[in-house]
Amino acid sequence: MKILIDVMGSDKGISEIVRGALSALDRVEYRPVFVGPEKEILKYIKDKYSGKFEIIDAQDVIRNEDKPALAIRRKKDSSMVKAFRALKNNEAEAMISTGSTGALLAGATLIIGRIKNVDRAAITLIFPGLEKSTIMLDVGANMDISEELILQFAKMGRSYAKVLFDEENPSLALLNIGSEEGKGNELSLKSYDLLDKADLNFIGNVEPYDLFTTEADVIVTDGFAGNIALKSVEGTGKTLVKLFKNAIDGSILAKIGIALMAPSLKKELKNLRLDEIGAAPLLGSKKPVFKAHGSSDHKQIEAGIIQIIKFINAGVIQDIENSMEV
Amino acid sequence: MKILIDVMGSDKGISEIVRGALSALDRVEYRPVFVGPEKEILKYIKDKYSGKFEIIDAQDVIRNEDKPALAIRRKKDSSMVKAFRALKNNEAEAMISTGSTGALLAGATLIIGRIKNVDRAAITLIFPGLEKSTIMLDVGANMDISEELILQFAKMGRSYAKVLFDEENPSLALLNIGSEEGKGNELSLKSYDLLDKADLNFIGNVEPYDLFTTEADVIVTDGFAGNIALKSVEGTGKTLVKLFKNAIDGSILAKIGIALMAPSLKKELKNLRLDEIGAAPLLGSKKPVFKAHGSSDHKQIEAGIIQIIKFINAGVIQDIENSMEV
Repeated sequence: MKILIDVMGSDKGISEIVRGALSALDRVEYRPVFVGPEKEILKYIKDKYSGKFEIIDAQDVIRNEDKPALAIRRKKDSSMVKAFRALKNNEAEAMISTGSTGALLAGATLIIGRIKNVDRAAITLIFPGLEKSTIMLDVGANMDISEELILQFAKMGRSYAKVLFDEENPSLALLNIGSEEGKGNELSLKSYDLLDKADLNFIGNVEPYDLFTTEADVIVTDGFAGNIALKSVEGTGKTLVKLFKNAIDGSILAKIGIALMAPSLKKELKNLRLDEIGAAPLLGSKKPVFKAHGSSDHKQIEAGIIQIIKFINAGVIQDIENSMEV
Repeated sequence: MKILIDVMGSDKGISEIVRGALSALDRVEYRPVFVGPEKEILKYIKDKYSGKFEIIDAQDVIRNEDKPALAIRRKKDSSMVKAFRALKNNEAEAMISTGSTGALLAGATLIIGRIKNVDRAAITLIFPGLEKSTIMLDVGANMDISEELILQFAKMGRSYAKVLFDEENPSLALLNIGSEEGKGNELSLKSYDLLDKADLNFIGNVEPYDLFTTEADVIVTDGFAGNIALKSVEGTGKTLVKLFKNAIDGSILAKIGIALMAPSLKKELKNLRLDEIGAAPLLGSKKPVFKAHGSSDHKQIEAGIIQIIKFINAGVIQDIENSMEV
């Protein structure tokens, strides 16, 4: 199985991506196809891997500032477009990138195309809960959508959850501003009705207050609300971590204190399992396109690649195709 | 100046509310009118305050589970409805309650009425930033609204910000999923255009990622997105605090560690100034109706009452009336 690895666009540089792909190679059977500047990629690969990988040379890069669709159309020599082309031409089974989410979505739509009966592809997030993780979609691609699209997200999310959580009948919830039925905006009310009628193990509304503790395997939402939730969580986390760091920086006593706390704090933070997942698919794309965070380290890239292999072997895309037939 | 104090609906009980109102009385000149079960209220008031307060006896309470509009219409003997009636009949200048937000909003609309040209009242939140606080509205009352209503929220929010931040020309931002122009859903795009054309010191979009650090004095949003953001922030905070507590509970070393960290951690947390504001108004109501959090302690009630007095003395409602004339 060949997986295209776009080495550009990472905050941590090319070496981190290559390192993650190679450590995945130590654990599972696959063939990495690195896409990016060949000479630099080769610098990070030890001899023992020779013959075990391929490279598609690409010198250009799509940046977060680029207009997504325009960049996909014009930057023919970018690593991302070259990876998409190779995926389209069946030179590999899947691709992973830490680059611009907007461009990845544009490429998945414009170059790869959508699964039949899927109207829009969705950006998926694996939300790290305290007890278990949750798949959330859409978290930023699709605004002003209908309840029918929410239903499609629900079906796609459940197909993925079966594999990710090894769960035969994943539970489904709707992101909303109240947990009771009858809460929310017009889209919430219509979506609730539609999901409730469908045979999708729908367990009702989930408030963002309970995102970290919900039992739901899949949470569906429109891309505006989903992105607001995601960025609110990130902003709060960032702020509290910053306060904590400031407290440590300002005091020697606090420095000793944090050293004493570190082991048990680390153990607790592990409950959030931030590293285990690594990457999430753009669901709705005809072929597996995975997005890893721009700040991913090698462990997350490794975990992402292992996820992709599971995703392919389990036939998630075929499962989505089937669920969309109804 | 008389202020109605609904003593029911607090998580911390009647004594906490009474205590807060009395400590405000030690600091500023006003006359508390307690609304609730008279006998119990009297238990918490020392002799030295005799003659300095009034009580409106009320035995019933509106609960969070009650349907807001129905409860306001039917629960005539509840503390909240009695407070609204007294406010309506000019027996006092303002009211504050820790009770159900939905019921407060229903009462403000059904009993007190809205300011001329205000189509809907909004729930206001004072968001505690690292450098400065920010007024955010609407955070839960109004779904599926138009850009014209967003503009009304902007005007009302700025009138309040002038007083709260002592700022002549408060800056205004729009909650959105990207900081650049052209981001967001249809409402975002239309609201951006309208706010940008108005003379409201509009500084553009603010992402939830930057809620704690934004320079904006006022952030406007629809009630769905605002509530999603608010509850995501609360849920993340709650989760991280819980992880932290678990880490401390599980280890003696960590207990010593946190004791060493405590002074500088407390100092940093003070930057979030969570206690200073205490309560926020339902903007658009013809008379001042303030909501305090159900978990408010006496300090927050005290701060809330001081806010109300500032709000009245500065003539915020008159200022909103003027801004709505245009």
